[in-house]
Amino acid sequence: MDAPEGRRGIALLLEYDGTDFAGSQVQPGERTVQGVLESALEEFTGERERIAFAGRTDTGVHASGQVAALSTRSAHSPATFRDALNHFLPQDVVVRAAAEVAVDFDPRRHASKRVYRYRLEDDLGAVARRPLRRRQAWQLGRPLDVPAMAEALALLPIGVEQDWAAFAGAVPEDYPTVRTMLDARVERCGPHDVRVTLEAGGFLPHQVRMTVGALERVGGGRLTPQEFARLVDGKPGTAGPAAPPQGLTLVSVEYPAGAVQFGE
Amino acid sequence: MDAPEGRRGIALLLEYDGTDFAGSQVQPGERTVQGVLESALEEFTGERERIAFAGRTDTGVHASGQVAALSTRSAHSPATFRDALNHFLPQDVVVRAAAEVAVDFDPRRHASKRVYRYRLEDDLGAVARRPLRRRQAWQLGRPLDVPAMAEALALLPIGVEQDWAAFAGAVPEDYPTVRTMLDARVERCGPHDVRVTLEAGGFLPHQVRMTVGALERVGGGRLTPQEFARLVDGKPGTAGPAAPPQGLTLVSVEYPAGAVQFGE
Repeated sequence: MDAPEGRRGIALLLEYDGTDFAGSQVQPGERTVQGVLESALEEFTGERERIAFAGRTDTGVHASGQVAALSTRSAHSPATFRDALNHFLPQDVVVRAAAEVAVDFDPRRHASKRVYRYRLEDDLGAVARRPLRRRQAWQLGRPLDVPAMAEALALLPIGVEQDWAAFAGAVPEDYPTVRTMLDARVERCGPHDVRVTLEAGGFLPHQVRMTVGALERVGGGRLTPQEFARLVDGKPGTAGPAAPPQGLTLVSVEYPAGAVQFGE
Repeated sequence: MDAPEGRRGIALLLEYDGTDFAGSQVQPGERTVQGVLESALEEFTGERERIAFAGRTDTGVHASGQVAALSTRSAHSPATFRDALNHFLPQDVVVRAAAEVAVDFDPRRHASKRVYRYRLEDDLGAVARRPLRRRQAWQLGRPLDVPAMAEALALLPIGVEQDWAAFAGAVPEDYPTVRTMLDARVERCGPHDVRVTLEAGGFLPHQVRMTVGALERVGGGRLTPQEFARLVDGKPGTAGPAAPPQGLTLVSVEYPAGAVQFGE
């Protein structure tokens, strides 16, 4: 983002239901979160501006705390940005809050931590399909062994640099695949409600969904916690099929103190 | 439902996401739950049969435990009915279970109790809109006073016959409006999660939504519990505007012992 005269930065805290979006990132001819947000901005201020996102989310993946940023010549307050953009946005995306930031604020590069949550519904029986929650959970007929899943996650390298290429989707050859996982945990929140939370400085493409995909095999008894842990040392992309997108939500993105402060 | 030679009754336990249906009941040119279910039945057995429902739900209203029934000449087991219908049904409706019933089983007339739940999200702040839960809750910016709402519900006539016309939408002039409410309660289930549960032998059209509409005014301090209780004595349809449909779910329908027994 350049910073010519008279420009200021506005950061946006976004929630969206990813079901009917072809992901977060603009693609020609597709309905994307970035696309509808840039259209709303143009309707509000008349500016055609690229809006940067903290994290790219795939088709069907949700966010309750995505962060985006734009630069503008408009003098409107952050609260006016929030309300005016919401006026033009469709029902499946909302600006929860807006804040003044430095004009060179980069929501992706400046982020210090991302938190993703993945929701599974287990033990649903012969009909492993519940329409009311189908858009926000991976629905499974069999029960999951959550203690085994927790044991598996506890064997991952946490708080240290690690090459996660085995858990990544296809990436360019020179793509850096070393990341630091900060936390990985799983909890049973109800008789059919299991939630996996992963926190890292940054994630590789598909890393959360491939981790959950392998973890589900542990929960179903098809992989031991030790076998799960050894997947980290495998060749790129070998950790196994990714979990489906609808269970995944980008919960929050954190920044160093002072970079961005969202009020309500 | 008539009972000619060779016919048997099958009851279905249904869950559906009402968002994209024009209600449960067949209407020409509209996508309805009954319509897609009757189409699935025709694809499976070749029979064009009217499928009866325990309760009529409006556009946007959900069900996790609706009961329907059909009569058939097919010899397939209930489990085969369940699986075959699910094969043909769209993703927003599912047959959770099926059971053999008497061919003259009437899911509406034979029901002894209906349970409805209404979900409100409160205290959401200036932006009273959360895309991830918008399809299944009435979302409010202000906090609700749940103890006042509970006090209001406790003043309703429970377990006795009562004319509920004041809480009904428009009904034909000779429509019976006396019903017995069996339970009415409200609970806070989380910082933004308030649930109202109403149980009765039967409800009038829009009765649950009009009750919740008035109850929300109590929660917001615009109506006292005593004023709420006095609404029952008002003229037909005067209890006030109905709460929006998306918060409402038909949770279960109960029958006298032996009428229907759903396995899993």
